[in-house]
Amino acid sequence: MDVKGYLAGISKRARQASYSVAKASTEEKNRLLKEMAKALREKSDYIIQENEKDLLYAKEHNLSKAMQDRLLLNKARIEAMAVSLEEIAALKDPVGEVISAWRNKDDLWIHKVRVPIGVIGIIYESRPNVTSDCIGLCIKSGNAVILRGGKEAINSNLAIFKTLKAVLENSSISSDVISFVETTDRSAVAEMLRQVGFIDLIIPRGGEGLIRFVTENSLVPVIKHYKGVCHEFVDASADIDMAVDICLNAKVQRPGVCNAIEKIIVHRDIAREFIPKVAKALKDAGVEIRGCQETVGIVDCVLAEEDDWYEEYLDLKIAIKVVDSLQDAIEWINQHSSHHSDGIITSDYESAMRFTREVDSAAVYVNASTRFTDGGVFGLGAEIGISTDKLHARGPMGVEELTTYKYIIFGEGQVRK
Amino acid sequence: MDVKGYLAGISKRARQASYSVAKASTEEKNRLLKEMAKALREKSDYIIQENEKDLLYAKEHNLSKAMQDRLLLNKARIEAMAVSLEEIAALKDPVGEVISAWRNKDDLWIHKVRVPIGVIGIIYESRPNVTSDCIGLCIKSGNAVILRGGKEAINSNLAIFKTLKAVLENSSISSDVISFVETTDRSAVAEMLRQVGFIDLIIPRGGEGLIRFVTENSLVPVIKHYKGVCHEFVDASADIDMAVDICLNAKVQRPGVCNAIEKIIVHRDIAREFIPKVAKALKDAGVEIRGCQETVGIVDCVLAEEDDWYEEYLDLKIAIKVVDSLQDAIEWINQHSSHHSDGIITSDYESAMRFTREVDSAAVYVNASTRFTDGGVFGLGAEIGISTDKLHARGPMGVEELTTYKYIIFGEGQVRK
Repeated sequence: MDVKGYLAGISKRARQASYSVAKASTEEKNRLLKEMAKALREKSDYIIQENEKDLLYAKEHNLSKAMQDRLLLNKARIEAMAVSLEEIAALKDPVGEVISAWRNKDDLWIHKVRVPIGVIGIIYESRPNVTSDCIGLCIKSGNAVILRGGKEAINSNLAIFKTLKAVLENSSISSDVISFVETTDRSAVAEMLRQVGFIDLIIPRGGEGLIRFVTENSLVPVIKHYKGVCHEFVDASADIDMAVDICLNAKVQRPGVCNAIEKIIVHRDIAREFIPKVAKALKDAGVEIRGCQETVGIVDCVLAEEDDWYEEYLDLKIAIKVVDSLQDAIEWINQHSSHHSDGIITSDYESAMRFTREVDSAAVYVNASTRFTDGGVFGLGAEIGISTDKLHARGPMGVEELTTYKYIIFGEGQVRK
Repeated sequence: MDVKGYLAGISKRARQASYSVAKASTEEKNRLLKEMAKALREKSDYIIQENEKDLLYAKEHNLSKAMQDRLLLNKARIEAMAVSLEEIAALKDPVGEVISAWRNKDDLWIHKVRVPIGVIGIIYESRPNVTSDCIGLCIKSGNAVILRGGKEAINSNLAIFKTLKAVLENSSISSDVISFVETTDRSAVAEMLRQVGFIDLIIPRGGEGLIRFVTENSLVPVIKHYKGVCHEFVDASADIDMAVDICLNAKVQRPGVCNAIEKIIVHRDIAREFIPKVAKALKDAGVEIRGCQETVGIVDCVLAEEDDWYEEYLDLKIAIKVVDSLQDAIEWINQHSSHHSDGIITSDYESAMRFTREVDSAAVYVNASTRFTDGGVFGLGAEIGISTDKLHARGPMGVEELTTYKYIIFGEGQVRK
């Protein structure tokens, strides 16, 4: 297969089609999303049948139970995908919003207007529902989308994609607005990253290896959905029961996600009281504890190595570190965090204000679990992911973050003096 | 010189220092900017003396007269740099603005707050005043900045940099907040582009070669300040006198800048009336005309080659193209424009609205010269440049565009169910 020519063709058609979805009306886009939801329900037997091929492959190749569960599609999961498309249809259309407008000294009417980005490339490894979620979010925000999923889910992804594509083929919007890279050849990813002028943004969602490959090789701008090495800092003045509850929730409520905590930082003044209590609660929940030298002196646990302070376990493991002051906690977190979500537990007002001001992360919490970092929970609607980058979008990335703006200027013959 | 170690050291110190300027008060930053303005005035003899070394180099190496003029610093130009710093001091501080805030269903107080990006790397080839402008804009927006200027201006840039650095050394903000790459070794640029985790954003300002090198090699996110291949489309219903005035202004008022037009697109229905008039006005102003086959049949000019439709002349040259319809004009512009600034001249309301909706450029004009695309003229204050990218910042980029945001969440013990 000529991967280079194949990707160039997809990208060129997506660019052309992007103008058709960019100018589509809100009603047109919402009608399409609702029809897509209906199609998923109608084709659920076909999708489940294709999904069985991926499950068989997973069993034959001894993929982990967790991975097999992530791959599985059943009636309930397909229904959830359909509902998600309907929820996206119900969101406010971000396109066309006048962000601000004014008249300048030349008497020009200047408008800053929200517009789609153009063509979004999504490279993902995760669950097949990402296919329909991303298609829904990109259409709602007026963008064309090119999807590249992992080879483990290729049959499921293609079945979902074809079902949604068929709906587009009966609409006034060009069906090239959604594309799926049908080859699992790894060189297809490299080719996607070279489509300058055709793809406007690449969003990689997956493991460290994928993210690193994309960042190092892309000529197209990238917004990373990278790891979450999240911290709770338990200040000297923390309410101990609240601190134990929050740390336990943030670690064990769902340990495999990016907004779960991986580290607890403890103020020295409260360490001897707090650490035994949190350690008991964590151990009772099956969590393995690694600690700094001081922690090891307080409770029975393994001594942490340097790598432990940077690692995203995504598992029932946690590392605990004792520090001398709020200042040291802030510096430690700014140096070791992946800048996703970090929190303080304190009853001191000044500590709370200073921590939120000085910790440089996408979401900074006072007295609440980091598990709340999520577009839906925040109230932003469905999310395409959580950006760990600082430019364009930071934190939960929904339909608004899939747009940019342009200036529209109305004059009456003005020239520059 | 160990360029790799040198850049790593600068970048690490800039990251550390960035926290000190990020939390500086508005008053502190403004006082600093005003003292910097004062220092430029006091040290003007020293700066002019250092500038003479660059002018001598330029003469010895037969740099163009235009280039020599861009390099020249005199009392008036240094005064303009000082005034610019005072104007930046007078701008509203973007840092700390609450962009939006709400309570979610978990009763969390969620705030989206404007914060500095962190460390900005600026790679430029142009005039020495860029040194002080960028330092001013970055300090105002709470960022640390690493500057890398062209070798032609190295003595002037260093004199300005050292003058401003001395002011910082007597302040409460770390002087590592501003750095200048003192080696002109090209490998220093490549090293800057690798400072992931230390530099947050690279802004290249310069010729196509520089921009391409930066885009292809940077591991750090880049916002390009690329070329302006700007168009005026003269619609069938255009007021001919207005169209001639605007095209003339947009081409000749200052031909060497990115918001000057390079192409005129003309609706066939008005071509035989409009083209002779605009051609006369342009020729009288010394502009060389290249035309499509049709244009060549109407006025005496050179036949344009394929490359002419993509070229940024930055000179008294223009290319004229006849099209059949508004639709064709929009498609032509979306394909050939650099997406900087493009305009329509029309008296038809529907054409105006459709053109502004469908042309995919940072600034889209109706009945006004493209020369207005400028942060100061728009009313946004001083600009660090004009972004031709779509992500994060599009069009004029001022202090607000040098910021990002974070979410600050206040809770009272909430955990996720």
